[in-house]
Amino acid sequence: MAATELEELIGLLSRLPGLGPRSARRAALHLVRHKAALTRPLVLTLEGVLDRVRPCSVCGNLDAGELCRICADAKRDPSVICVVEEVEDLWSLERARVFRGRYHVLGGTLKALDGIRPEDLRIQSLIERLEREPDVAEVVLALGATVEGQTTAHYLLDRLGDTKARVTGLARGVPLGGQLSYLDDGTLGAAFKSRRPVASGPG
Amino acid sequence: MAATELEELIGLLSRLPGLGPRSARRAALHLVRHKAALTRPLVLTLEGVLDRVRPCSVCGNLDAGELCRICADAKRDPSVICVVEEVEDLWSLERARVFRGRYHVLGGTLKALDGIRPEDLRIQSLIERLEREPDVAEVVLALGATVEGQTTAHYLLDRLGDTKARVTGLARGVPLGGQLSYLDDGTLGAAFKSRRPVASGPG
Repeated sequence: MAATELEELIGLLSRLPGLGPRSARRAALHLVRHKAALTRPLVLTLEGVLDRVRPCSVCGNLDAGELCRICADAKRDPSVICVVEEVEDLWSLERARVFRGRYHVLGGTLKALDGIRPEDLRIQSLIERLEREPDVAEVVLALGATVEGQTTAHYLLDRLGDTKARVTGLARGVPLGGQLSYLDDGTLGAAFKSRRPVASGPG
Repeated sequence: MAATELEELIGLLSRLPGLGPRSARRAALHLVRHKAALTRPLVLTLEGVLDRVRPCSVCGNLDAGELCRICADAKRDPSVICVVEEVEDLWSLERARVFRGRYHVLGGTLKALDGIRPEDLRIQSLIERLEREPDVAEVVLALGATVEGQTTAHYLLDRLGDTKARVTGLARGVPLGGQLSYLDDGTLGAAFKSRRPVASGPG
């Protein structure tokens, strides 16, 4: 028996991250039941995404058009580039409103075991970008505090040896709301080592 | 700032059951990164679903065309109708392969508090169907062992008083508070096999 439209839809939906077979079935029924309010707009939006969303030619962020909104925004500080692993990380930093410079999305981390080498990431384009943008004074390596993230940070530090921009990394420490007894030894050790004077109060 | 294509997509995806804001973001990025393998086929399939999938005019199952595949299948036993709450329940029974008759999908259960009355369910069409199909010998009420499911079963038993078909219910074995679509095939099969006549009411 050929797969019906609904079975095809369930099969495709179950390939989305976070959707198992059961939630894919529920999502498919939801789409059938809400054609006008949800499915039609979704098809239009997906067509727009297919046609227009692509990696920004400068930073690798995903957006419509040649340049992403951040690279195209004249109000963003051009003197700082924040290097992140993935677009998700860029979105997290944007939601936190902690950074007003520009980004560079590597597209992953070095992973020898999975065969992900420097040429598979947007590393060469970062180096060329720094040559092209001589006013960049600081490169923040906002990579994960994981083995892969730190391997990639070390590799980048090496490759960025010739740039005159200052290379920084995110502080390691106790996360906000974190209780000491729940933290791993590595985090505790890092937080202890980088302890700092307390002025008028913690925070 | 107008919502970008990606923000729109995330907004729509987060309205699917089972997808929160975080998983909707991950799903959206997945769709942008797998345009050819996933997003294009998904758009085509959604268009097919929009154009063709609708409730079967006889039983209420969702499928392409006027009649669903089950109602159109001459090999299905026309003498038994299995009444279920939702299409999910029909799918669960089909996956369990315990039933070779035909279905009737009510589209929900009676819920006084939510204002769901008999005329909001496919009950009148079940009664008319039984008049139209005099060879139906048995109606299986395969409703959930929930308060609403059993209220609906009692109401149906009353409304079906004039039919000469035997009215049966699933055997106890369906755990109390359990919904059909959550059950494993073995439990469903056992409950189906021990279905019994409904006298004054199930339970």
